[in-house]
Amino acid sequence: MEGQGRARRDAAEVTAFAPATVANLGLGFDVLGLALAGLGDRVTARLVPGTGVRMGSITGDGGALPTEAARNTAGIAAIATLRRAGVQIGVELDLAKGLPLGSGLGSSASSAAAAAFAVNLLVGSPLRKADLILPCVEAEEAVSGRHADNVAPALLGGLVLVRSVDPLDVVRLPVPEGLTLAVVTPVFELATRKARAVLPKEVPLSSHVSNTANLAALVAAFYAEDLALLARCLPDAIVTPARASLIPGCMDVIDSALEAGALASSISGSGPSMFAFCRSQRSAREVAAAMGGAFTRAGLEWSSVVSSADCPGVRRV
Amino acid sequence: MEGQGRARRDAAEVTAFAPATVANLGLGFDVLGLALAGLGDRVTARLVPGTGVRMGSITGDGGALPTEAARNTAGIAAIATLRRAGVQIGVELDLAKGLPLGSGLGSSASSAAAAAFAVNLLVGSPLRKADLILPCVEAEEAVSGRHADNVAPALLGGLVLVRSVDPLDVVRLPVPEGLTLAVVTPVFELATRKARAVLPKEVPLSSHVSNTANLAALVAAFYAEDLALLARCLPDAIVTPARASLIPGCMDVIDSALEAGALASSISGSGPSMFAFCRSQRSAREVAAAMGGAFTRAGLEWSSVVSSADCPGVRRV
Repeated sequence: MEGQGRARRDAAEVTAFAPATVANLGLGFDVLGLALAGLGDRVTARLVPGTGVRMGSITGDGGALPTEAARNTAGIAAIATLRRAGVQIGVELDLAKGLPLGSGLGSSASSAAAAAFAVNLLVGSPLRKADLILPCVEAEEAVSGRHADNVAPALLGGLVLVRSVDPLDVVRLPVPEGLTLAVVTPVFELATRKARAVLPKEVPLSSHVSNTANLAALVAAFYAEDLALLARCLPDAIVTPARASLIPGCMDVIDSALEAGALASSISGSGPSMFAFCRSQRSAREVAAAMGGAFTRAGLEWSSVVSSADCPGVRRV
Repeated sequence: MEGQGRARRDAAEVTAFAPATVANLGLGFDVLGLALAGLGDRVTARLVPGTGVRMGSITGDGGALPTEAARNTAGIAAIATLRRAGVQIGVELDLAKGLPLGSGLGSSASSAAAAAFAVNLLVGSPLRKADLILPCVEAEEAVSGRHADNVAPALLGGLVLVRSVDPLDVVRLPVPEGLTLAVVTPVFELATRKARAVLPKEVPLSSHVSNTANLAALVAAFYAEDLALLARCLPDAIVTPARASLIPGCMDVIDSALEAGALASSISGSGPSMFAFCRSQRSAREVAAAMGGAFTRAGLEWSSVVSSADCPGVRRV
């Protein structure tokens, strides 16, 4: 990909796709995230006269997104990428949203990652993918807080642990063979800022200890490919209970996922999307239907995605 | 070992040794622990007429430990082991302390593990080693709180993650080849109860997130044998800062360890012992001397141990 990028240094435009992501994975608040298959945003970056970044067309957002580059996550990521690369050119971005806003699937991160990657390709790939994380974190910071658990997997693909944002330190984790996600998104927008506002500012030491123990064991389960352990690790004493009341049917969705054979289930990112870890694609399809049934009982329409837990990140299309 | 135990079912007495342990390992408060080489306690269990457990001789404690079985961690663990095994016999325990009390090296856990293992052997090994963890947790609860991060590695050996005490769920973690600990113990008793009393009851969400991220990355470093990552993971925003002021020279010990080439350094258990992860035995010897030098500057005498990070647990001797 990078070779191709260099070869096309003088291409007039480049289009990139970045996937949706499931952040937190229950108890890994601001720490874990993984890339999904299928869903994502697409950004075309093209050279234009002059310098600076401007937004061209934006589609799929129902007119909700800012058209000013400095206020749009794609625009902010592109500006920060050019600054980091030390390149001054004129760029216009077309953004095609494939992800609903406020769905808990890393919509802003997907736009940022696609824009950063496309712009980097456009100028001859001076930066590596990992160098694009901080420019995308700048974009996230503008809309939902300084966190990298969506942008890191949107760029790198797979399952990513964010040890630290400042300084940046991310670790790719292995994914057990066959591990599959069922992801169900209700038609119900939940702003990340609102979902962050309900979080406790302080957590009891006992909850801290149980969450650290479960997260440490979850990482062990990924390395050891121990699905039985993975199934025991998702109880979250802190973030999930605080957010459950913001998502109609939340606990019923989790119960329905487990009854249908899921290994574990929780909120995707800040919600309202919910995910479940499953042993196979077949199981994940049954689990997704059961989770959707719970949203239906809560009076919400929904859509679902079944995805491998080990999917590629941003790429040229 | 178990076969030997069964063969000697009618042995009149059995002696077991259980190692010292380093719990917490910095930020894995109540969650991580590992067994050390060399240091430990020894318990002889012998059949006596009647039923119930009584303490025989206790040596090496300077007369500090209770001589009543129901108040001594060795006695409590033995009583709980016999109860769990459903066996009613008379047992006398001789306890030879090889570990200083209140040193942060799992002294109470070592006594409990040695007693539980010896008594189980004495009655024909009806229980597996893992079944002895909860009887030993009962003993810990009586003196310092309901935690398993010392007794689990004292019994099982190696590096152990305690995902949950109730219900019990422990995971053996791999240890990178060659990883060595330098452990330095100042002559300065710090009661676990006192070290627990300084802990915050509530933790800022930001500290919770940074500690979960670091602990998750530490587990990844153990699996991936990534010593550079391990060296970045030990900053602890919660427990170590709260306890540092209880240990004269604490921060100087950590700085001295790092200057001498340690990968990372922190408090062992509730202190005052301090440990450092090192790349080799040779490095660990230099690091231990540097850590000891810092305790000397703080006006404390000290002793040190250099140990592989992957040592066996309790055994018959």
